[in-house]
Amino acid sequence: MDSYSGKITRLAEQFASLPGIGAKSAQRLAFHIVSMPEENVSALAEAILDARRNIRFCKYCCTLTDEEVCPICASDKRDHSTIMVVENARDLAAYEKTGRYEGVYHVLQGAISPAAGIGPNEIRLKELMRRLQSEDVKEVIIATNSSLEGETTAMYISKLIKPSGIPVTRIASGVPVGGDLENIDEVTLLRALDGRVPL
Amino acid sequence: MDSYSGKITRLAEQFASLPGIGAKSAQRLAFHIVSMPEENVSALAEAILDARRNIRFCKYCCTLTDEEVCPICASDKRDHSTIMVVENARDLAAYEKTGRYEGVYHVLQGAISPAAGIGPNEIRLKELMRRLQSEDVKEVIIATNSSLEGETTAMYISKLIKPSGIPVTRIASGVPVGGDLENIDEVTLLRALDGRVPL
Repeated sequence: MDSYSGKITRLAEQFASLPGIGAKSAQRLAFHIVSMPEENVSALAEAILDARRNIRFCKYCCTLTDEEVCPICASDKRDHSTIMVVENARDLAAYEKTGRYEGVYHVLQGAISPAAGIGPNEIRLKELMRRLQSEDVKEVIIATNSSLEGETTAMYISKLIKPSGIPVTRIASGVPVGGDLENIDEVTLLRALDGRVPL
Repeated sequence: MDSYSGKITRLAEQFASLPGIGAKSAQRLAFHIVSMPEENVSALAEAILDARRNIRFCKYCCTLTDEEVCPICASDKRDHSTIMVVENARDLAAYEKTGRYEGVYHVLQGAISPAAGIGPNEIRLKELMRRLQSEDVKEVIIATNSSLEGETTAMYISKLIKPSGIPVTRIASGVPVGGDLENIDEVTLLRALDGRVPL
């Protein structure tokens, strides 16, 4: 590998350590970087440092943001009495893209995973409970992933909230729109059957 | 997209402008960066700037390197009388990986492509001719790609060198090892037939 330049090799190694970038792509990226105009390279490096250094968690919903309060929590066009609980900011972004959800969020920054040693204290659950005490909340929608960790987290949160009397719901699980039944796993098929709704 | 943080969005846009990184991967990378330890992020940004700022072309073979002369041209273990001509440093790296080639290289930093407006003066051809005059070269092996541009470049170079009397060879073209004949294009099959060797 060191036949051309140690600096390119080191850069390729840096890229290869990022998720989803293999050795070949990392090398291609490194060669691309050295052939880019210098100001574009500076802009990339600056964006990397800037994002890492100036990011923080929203005071209310714990999502990643530049400000003390994220744009959604700061907006008076949102329904602050409905809180959707998601695992991370990417999931929040996915629901925001639908353009239909008008409530606010709570970002757990993870999910309970005994296997990975992540317990209720390692995720932003205390912050959620504090919100439920201080804010006037009418519904908590749990939108954690439909994985073992996501389901465990959903069950845990719903038990935790129940005594307060605030209604807790869970997003529906079933056959995805456009999904072909023959390609869908049995667990999902049974979930879809159990969750059937009258037409 | 701006529902979480403008800085993450800007970083994702930067990543998405790199080759082979789509919008989804760019977003995943951006979120990964903000969750990385700060020293790792600094190391990545530093490697990017360092590679771009301190890279130059080897005085002899024109490959990308940190020094005035690349490690291969500087090595006295290599056969400096055999020059393999390649299009770019990635191709050089591919042949270096075989561990069998003991000569040196010349990196054209491109290939002649009338369609893209790249003529013989846009690639490092003058530098090659200068080497052939000043060094004692016994063979020039042309290892440009087996594409239209690569073949055009190979023909052009061989004509240019011929008057000097230095032997010019071209790497073999044919069916790749492990290749299944039924999946190989006709041009390659005919090339393999034309280039058949006695057993």
